[in-house]
Amino acid sequence: MLQPLKGFRDFYPEDMAFQRWFYNLIKEISESFGYQEYEGPMVEPLDLYAAKSGEELVKKQAFTWKDVSDRTLALRPEITPTLARMITQKEGSLTFPVKWFTYGRRFRYEQPQKGRGREFFQWDIDVLGSDSPESDAEIIAIAGTFYQKLGLTPAEVKIKINDRKFLQDKLTEIGIAQEKITPLFRIIDKKSKVDEKAFREMVNTETGNADITDKVIDILNDKESYKTSDWLTKMFNILEAMNLRDYVEFDPAIVRGLDYYTRTVFESWDVKGDFRAIWGGGRYDNLTEDIGSNQKIPGVGFALGDMVISELLKTNGKFPTLKTNTSSVLVTIFSPELQNDALKLSLKLRLGGINTELYSDPTSKLDKQLKYADKKGIPWVVIIGPDEKEKGIVVLKNMKTNSQETLTPEEAVAKIKTA
Amino acid sequence: MLQPLKGFRDFYPEDMAFQRWFYNLIKEISESFGYQEYEGPMVEPLDLYAAKSGEELVKKQAFTWKDVSDRTLALRPEITPTLARMITQKEGSLTFPVKWFTYGRRFRYEQPQKGRGREFFQWDIDVLGSDSPESDAEIIAIAGTFYQKLGLTPAEVKIKINDRKFLQDKLTEIGIAQEKITPLFRIIDKKSKVDEKAFREMVNTETGNADITDKVIDILNDKESYKTSDWLTKMFNILEAMNLRDYVEFDPAIVRGLDYYTRTVFESWDVKGDFRAIWGGGRYDNLTEDIGSNQKIPGVGFALGDMVISELLKTNGKFPTLKTNTSSVLVTIFSPELQNDALKLSLKLRLGGINTELYSDPTSKLDKQLKYADKKGIPWVVIIGPDEKEKGIVVLKNMKTNSQETLTPEEAVAKIKTA
Repeated sequence: MLQPLKGFRDFYPEDMAFQRWFYNLIKEISESFGYQEYEGPMVEPLDLYAAKSGEELVKKQAFTWKDVSDRTLALRPEITPTLARMITQKEGSLTFPVKWFTYGRRFRYEQPQKGRGREFFQWDIDVLGSDSPESDAEIIAIAGTFYQKLGLTPAEVKIKINDRKFLQDKLTEIGIAQEKITPLFRIIDKKSKVDEKAFREMVNTETGNADITDKVIDILNDKESYKTSDWLTKMFNILEAMNLRDYVEFDPAIVRGLDYYTRTVFESWDVKGDFRAIWGGGRYDNLTEDIGSNQKIPGVGFALGDMVISELLKTNGKFPTLKTNTSSVLVTIFSPELQNDALKLSLKLRLGGINTELYSDPTSKLDKQLKYADKKGIPWVVIIGPDEKEKGIVVLKNMKTNSQETLTPEEAVAKIKTA
Repeated sequence: MLQPLKGFRDFYPEDMAFQRWFYNLIKEISESFGYQEYEGPMVEPLDLYAAKSGEELVKKQAFTWKDVSDRTLALRPEITPTLARMITQKEGSLTFPVKWFTYGRRFRYEQPQKGRGREFFQWDIDVLGSDSPESDAEIIAIAGTFYQKLGLTPAEVKIKINDRKFLQDKLTEIGIAQEKITPLFRIIDKKSKVDEKAFREMVNTETGNADITDKVIDILNDKESYKTSDWLTKMFNILEAMNLRDYVEFDPAIVRGLDYYTRTVFESWDVKGDFRAIWGGGRYDNLTEDIGSNQKIPGVGFALGDMVISELLKTNGKFPTLKTNTSSVLVTIFSPELQNDALKLSLKLRLGGINTELYSDPTSKLDKQLKYADKKGIPWVVIIGPDEKEKGIVVLKNMKTNSQETLTPEEAVAKIKTA
């Protein structure tokens, strides 16, 4: 009972400091592009995902249970279907395109490993109500800006981009039948997980024709073909104009596992190859209809998890230095008779905008109190003894230099604030 | 499928603005008292709560299901047992007293009503490793400070304080047997929900003696008896020294429903009586042992939900005015040929620290783009036409006054920033 469940995490203040730093960065970037924050429930009916989230996610990875009315509920494995539901619900009163972001928990029953847990946080950012390649490029540009802010370079991370529709057209051109496209996409999605020979065999099983298999492989290896696509060309031009061209590359073998993607798809990889796809996203133009709306609202977005980014920052020596303790000063209690004076002083310091901890036990020796401040990493300590009380002053001690001086409370506030 | 589940909420940007404002306030107050932020998993084994969270919470209100190994898991109905677990787990490396706070979701299967949902947010703040009345007073002082910051006065909200041990001693004095104490506490906890006569009958059924029942009622009505308790006297003196005495009052009939409280208990009420207890807390000195640790670490804290506070602010006319849109400027696209210039300008504005939205469709008429900015409440719009491009300037339009001027991009940044 004394450990968290497998794949779940406790966040001690040092872990929480990373979470807060990460969230603040995400919020800053999202808002700098004009995106607004939203959130949804942590629990949804499983049906919401069953529509189009893909078999693996729904049947194998969802935490589910039945409610009293025998309806199957799920801990949300992703938030895009919730977003589609929310947009549909208020479709009449929203100004499109809607540009929204969120950061919250998702749940997947997977084998925990480096960068992956059963409960994790995810940044989702989406545009809804726009079907322009400009929106797709902007979403990818936001991810590129995120990498820039983290100090992760194009030599360390890449974003691979494709267009499912473009790939589908190419496959149709070489004679792949309509009903073979989805199964073939499922195989292509596994390309990076198997070797060349195994992949060829998987494709061949589906096409049943070695010539066509050759042509499929050729299509998947042609890194220049995007130049014949207006859509993709526009996207790459915009990313070039935004000084992000080095982060992105065309990869016709990127299709993504979620069934709801209709056009642009993209995923990011670390160049060293320590991780599998770091995060991904794409365009989903039918999702609102898929979940039962009679309005078709096009959308595009990405989802990016906290655990893999944290590992990636560590691997590349770019994990931030974070402050766990936010207290500036400890007010000690010299003796029980001087407790009220310590109390009043702590009030004064807080009113001055200083994070102030008051020692909890008025019967403790001063030495013990100083040791506590030291252990907690609190930079200043204030002492009011009988002499100080009489003179209306305080002793301010700098815990780093061990030096101390006597000041009025107002002077102490100023000193701590400017330190 | 197009609605959230009953008792669960969607957070549109306007709802999220409240959440962010509320969280920032909580964080500011908690940190001003020297408390550090933590979080835990959203799912725990049900056993963790079964120890001492009280029958109602565990058997009736918990969302539970069985995992693959037939273990019953629960969506956390509260976080105190998780906190006790976390503290126990790292007991050797923590500096006591630990002062921690958190803000996150809790889940209870209850009938949704005003101020109560099945999924809600809660602020928990606790001291662990201190058994002084000073810590109890500090926790209550934090709640009082919260009320002050919200502008809620002692004429609108009160915090009722009691000491379970003190009450138990009083009941023992009049001859109540040890084994009758817990059942009697359960009855006392219901006092405010029934009328005087019904309550008397409930007590009498338990005591089986009208004389003793009279004495119990007398004890529960004596608002001055705390003066004979050193513990409670100390607490009230501290709250007086902190200018919070008007917010607090002694009430011997407060016992709280959670079984793990051992001593101080408190709950807050609105004076008008629109709500039941707004929030509550208390001292739990045996919880780490109850969940299976061999270390006894005393604790005290409160838990306060977002929904009831939101309603309380509305009822008292103190709900904050919040900004839903955080964008400062919309960069329009005059024509597809000038798209890259608009792109470059939006980059420049963002680098200048301005939240900048770029219009999504380069083929839209300028009129439509201006209308979009107006509808979204974006205060500024920038336009680069062919003339402006040639001269290296931009048109900056103030959407409120409808006035516009031509400026260099640097001047536009300065103007928007100082507005």
